[in-house]
Amino acid sequence: MSLHSVWLDCDPGHDDATAILLALHCRNIHLLGVSTVHGNSDAQSTLLNAARCLQAFAAPESVKVYPGASKPILRSAQHAPEIHGVDGLGGVEGLPPLSDEGVLARIVTSSKAIEAIADALRKTWMDGAGSKISIIASGPLTNVALFLSVYPELSDGIEQIVFMGGGVGVGNRTAVAEFNILCDPEAAQIVLDTPVPKTMVPLNVTHQAIVTPAIQARLVATPTPLRHTLSTLIRFFEDAYKATFGFDDGPPLHDALTVAYVSCPELFKCKRYRVDVELEGKHTVGETIADIWDYRRADDTWGPTGKNSLVALELDVPAFFDLLLDCVAKCDAVSPLNRAKA
Amino acid sequence: MSLHSVWLDCDPGHDDATAILLALHCRNIHLLGVSTVHGNSDAQSTLLNAARCLQAFAAPESVKVYPGASKPILRSAQHAPEIHGVDGLGGVEGLPPLSDEGVLARIVTSSKAIEAIADALRKTWMDGAGSKISIIASGPLTNVALFLSVYPELSDGIEQIVFMGGGVGVGNRTAVAEFNILCDPEAAQIVLDTPVPKTMVPLNVTHQAIVTPAIQARLVATPTPLRHTLSTLIRFFEDAYKATFGFDDGPPLHDALTVAYVSCPELFKCKRYRVDVELEGKHTVGETIADIWDYRRADDTWGPTGKNSLVALELDVPAFFDLLLDCVAKCDAVSPLNRAKA
Amino acid sequence: MSLHSVWLDCDPGHDDATAILLALHCRNIHLLGVSTVHGNSDAQSTLLNAARCLQAFAAPESVKVYPGASKPILRSAQHAPEIHGVDGLGGVEGLPPLSDEGVLARIVTSSKAIEAIADALRKTWMDGAGSKISIIASGPLTNVALFLSVYPELSDGIEQIVFMGGGVGVGNRTAVAEFNILCDPEAAQIVLDTPVPKTMVPLNVTHQAIVTPAIQARLVATPTPLRHTLSTLIRFFEDAYKATFGFDDGPPLHDALTVAYVSCPELFKCKRYRVDVELEGKHTVGETIADIWDYRRADDTWGPTGKNSLVALELDVPAFFDLLLDCVAKCDAVSPLNRAKA
Amino acid sequence: MSLHSVWLDCDPGHDDATAILLALHCRNIHLLGVSTVHGNSDAQSTLLNAARCLQAFAAPESVKVYPGASKPILRSAQHAPEIHGVDGLGGVEGLPPLSDEGVLARIVTSSKAIEAIADALRKTWMDGAGSKISIIASGPLTNVALFLSVYPELSDGIEQIVFMGGGVGVGNRTAVAEFNILCDPEAAQIVLDTPVPKTMVPLNVTHQAIVTPAIQARLVATPTPLRHTLSTLIRFFEDAYKATFGFDDGPPLHDALTVAYVSCPELFKCKRYRVDVELEGKHTVGETIADIWDYRRADDTWGPTGKNSLVALELDVPAFFDLLLDCVAKCDAVSPLNRAKA
Repeated sequence: MSLHSVWLDCDPGHDDATAILLALHCRNIHLLGVSTVHGNSDAQSTLLNAARCLQAFAAPESVKVYPGASKPILRSAQHAPEIHGVDGLGGVEGLPPLSDEGVLARIVTSSKAIEAIADALRKTWMDGAGSKISIIASGPLTNVALFLSVYPELSDGIEQIVFMGGGVGVGNRTAVAEFNILCDPEAAQIVLDTPVPKTMVPLNVTHQAIVTPAIQARLVATPTPLRHTLSTLIRFFEDAYKATFGFDDGPPLHDALTVAYVSCPELFKCKRYRVDVELEGKHTVGETIADIWDYRRADDTWGPTGKNSLVALELDVPAFFDLLLDCVAKCDAVSPLNRAKA
Repeated sequence: MSLHSVWLDCDPGHDDATAILLALHCRNIHLLGVSTVHGNSDAQSTLLNAARCLQAFAAPESVKVYPGASKPILRSAQHAPEIHGVDGLGGVEGLPPLSDEGVLARIVTSSKAIEAIADALRKTWMDGAGSKISIIASGPLTNVALFLSVYPELSDGIEQIVFMGGGVGVGNRTAVAEFNILCDPEAAQIVLDTPVPKTMVPLNVTHQAIVTPAIQARLVATPTPLRHTLSTLIRFFEDAYKATFGFDDGPPLHDALTVAYVSCPELFKCKRYRVDVELEGKHTVGETIADIWDYRRADDTWGPTGKNSLVALELDVPAFFDLLLDCVAKCDAVSPLNRAKA
Repeated sequence: MSLHSVWLDCDPGHDDATAILLALHCRNIHLLGVSTVHGNSDAQSTLLNAARCLQAFAAPESVKVYPGASKPILRSAQHAPEIHGVDGLGGVEGLPPLSDEGVLARIVTSSKAIEAIADALRKTWMDGAGSKISIIASGPLTNVALFLSVYPELSDGIEQIVFMGGGVGVGNRTAVAEFNILCDPEAAQIVLDTPVPKTMVPLNVTHQAIVTPAIQARLVATPTPLRHTLSTLIRFFEDAYKATFGFDDGPPLHDALTVAYVSCPELFKCKRYRVDVELEGKHTVGETIADIWDYRRADDTWGPTGKNSLVALELDVPAFFDLLLDCVAKCDAVSPLNRAKA
Repeated sequence: MSLHSVWLDCDPGHDDATAILLALHCRNIHLLGVSTVHGNSDAQSTLLNAARCLQAFAAPESVKVYPGASKPILRSAQHAPEIHGVDGLGGVEGLPPLSDEGVLARIVTSSKAIEAIADALRKTWMDGAGSKISIIASGPLTNVALFLSVYPELSDGIEQIVFMGGGVGVGNRTAVAEFNILCDPEAAQIVLDTPVPKTMVPLNVTHQAIVTPAIQARLVATPTPLRHTLSTLIRFFEDAYKATFGFDDGPPLHDALTVAYVSCPELFKCKRYRVDVELEGKHTVGETIADIWDYRRADDTWGPTGKNSLVALELDVPAFFDLLLDCVAKCDAVSPLNRAKA
């Protein structure tokens, strides 16, 4: 089980919060830093939410949050208050409050997201032992795309880019487009055209990761403050998914799968396709098109002419939730939420 | 079981041939006429193929073939020789040969398709007992769209339009577009915007109608010349689907479902959606977008602002093949192929 | 000076009215019929307006009006009440009133526009001495496109298609699109792709045909009821152009140029270009793109691969108004408006 | 005559070279730095060409060149060898050769273009006396757009953005698109949406700045090495414009107008419009659409809802060439080309 140096770019967001928890407590993941982006809520909210999660989930002092883009590269920003509440973590109880400026100031930096990613790559890859970095993106891809546009010379230091987004024949924010990709479709295409290994974690697989009542029961079997917080998070998300999409069995934990994939790729079945984003259609802007019939005859590179992405299509659902609950247990041991309560 | 007056517009095509057979022998279908269109092959081939099928499947004298559009409304024509052979009925043995001009001349007329449909509507609906007509389309929708554009006043006489085409999250001629719709996407949108009841029979349901080896065995259990012809038809189609799309269990009998739907709608589970065709995308031209999440808040009309189409999503597969084989049996009793052989 | 058999498709419309006058009184034009289309006003209004003009301008009994499409092929209808009033001939005094059903019934037929054009071609070209027909279109090209789609075999009988529409680098209904083309851009592209000689009469040249105060003075120098009617027409149009586009010297008499071109092509300087219509842009739908730098390397055919249209770019302005005023003088001699007044 | 602090982003390019000369020798311009971008040639060539020009035209030591983007934000790079030669300054004699690494190394830095612009803004505006900077762009707008995306907080320090590009109803790289905008249309839209004052210098006005034989005669009236160099530059450009576009009187000195505008805005007549870039059309990608009829009813801001740009439409041609020749004269006095020759 090899160790992965990871940068997490996110827009917390309920499921982003679980991604942060996994990134901090998966055994073989070394989290270098967290950057935030507009998306589920505005950029200021996602920045503070990331800091609140890092604090609550016992991040080491070295892990900071770096503010990223407050709007897409080309289009206007859009958010998802009906899914995540206005501030991005609606209904979640027990996190450090936004008014807790002292806590947050220790974690939030003023360095720009893309400069921080560049610094991490220079330190870890160029100056260091040459170990590459996995970039995980659980929100719109604006930061990642800007980073790749400004620092193309550092892309060789990227082990892989793993992003939650898109769908093969399914959408959620329109009939055919998924929210993260639709928010900044040009950024997504820029990332997809970059010649580094990529894995797309689309709705097809994230809709398998349903937090059923049984899973929720396991989560709260041990009553700790951390588990209470997570439980309120799941319940808000569950209600939003029931009201908006008619999900009856529980909410899909989209973003957590990105970290699970880096930690345990064996939990996933993937196929490698040419994937593009529709940037022009009247009804289809933001749709990800995976060339499932190989009409494009794409080559084996990861760039503009190639089968540019693995696409995760099947999940070992029980193993995933075992991983998640295992990380919660580890977090239980160190979370200041639990200490505060004691 | 009510009787349906039916007009069939088609581009035979292997599966169109089975649609013709069903249209002639379903108990509750009264076939008024057949028009042909560019599509699986060029317009001249599909015209003659329709005549060959009508002759072979024992059409009454009153049922003629009417030539329709040789190209899409706006775009260039494209065909599917890799699926249907160059002449549209590749590999099919026993049909009247194209050189059999006497036979074909009795069936092929020189009246234009859209004028013939207009005449049929005037006779059956306006001048007659007011019974409406079901228009079935198993090819690109050029003829139907031109008919609706030129004779909008006759659309009240249309009971329903049932067309094979499109997909919900799946395509066959591109990653996301189905062949019939892609061939003339503007025609499809024109039809979808017309305020008459419509049922779309998409790939989602036609890919359920697989002619498995077991079905093929039932087909040829009684050795008649007609069944031999149908068997060669299925085998050519099977090989094409294996080579092009990797179908291992047999070919999907797309077009036959349209007639089956008119005859026995109870074999289908449908949902009613707003459906549009992407006319502009770089990667998505010809995709049908069914508004599965109801983001468009479409009303209950069948026109431009409404949930404009039923979409067939599930098929009672055994019942469908029972219907098909029942029609073959009825055809066996009257087909000149069998008489010729005797 | 050769005689031209002409079919006029129009949407009167103030300037269409002057086109009708020219088509009736140009020495070398034999007007076969008039069809009408949605455009400046709704289809019912343009139909009746054409009949009113034919009556007022002394059309022979043989010239009838045929109703055409009430909406574009693909898009929704749009009209120009700010330019032509709600009924299409706002502010025009002295024409037969819409309530004059007897007059109008003699002129309006119930035959469809495209069938009437087909009949005219069959009579004049196929059955007759083989003389071809010039089709003039002064409104959206819906009728012409539907005619060409349904009767492609008759296109050899078309001498030329001359249409008012488009612009080279200039629009009027959007920054870059002209009204007639924008109303039905797909129809325009269908016409442009048809392999018959075509001349586009764009804004570049119609904006040269300004009815200045001096021209208006010449028009009313002789006080007749007909001239009074025409004068009210010009004044309403003048006010609309001043208010909407800031034209200070008088209105441009767009549509009249199409007939003038057929009658006296020597009044125009044209260049032959590849011309296409933008059907997809966010800002540019309906723009005509003339390939002025020959980047497309189009061939010498009039069809989809060729330099498909002459584009009129310069007008002999004095000669045009001489022609117009000459036709008015001829009309003066026979117009029932003048007789009614006597 | 106020002093303007200027940053010049360019892709030399023959006419960019003259822009550099003007930026160095216009009395009221203080050139802070030069960044380069893909465009007329590849990014490495334009970088070195800028350094060659700075050296040849006697730039002060403080003025360095900073390398920018080697490709557009979203699309593939394209160059213009038929206009500028393969290396971007085809046919120009007397400049420091590309092999002169010592000279070039003194001028070329390794700092990224957008970081250098940010540093300049911080020094000149934030830390300094609060004087703002004019950003001039004479190539594709990739660098400027990336700068604005990454450092939005510095945009308040921008006095104005003046860019050569686009056209109102005219293009050069397609029928309707100008080269700089077409190369990176997304970048252009990003810049146009930024709420700072902007002036577009389009083909409409640059095609007025023709270097006629009379101007060329004035240029070489005094025989200096510098003037010989400039003369070879003009002649190559002249031949390219004659061969490609049929310009008979001399080449248009596009890029020089941007600097002239900052120095002497009184030489230009401008109108303020809403300007957008077509990103989606089949025929019109890269076209700039100026809302000349004010259909958009844009407000008075410089951002996404406003009349976002002044558009230069008329030039005082003699005064412009007087300015240019005056700068040449000043450059003559200090150019190392002349000293080297002595």
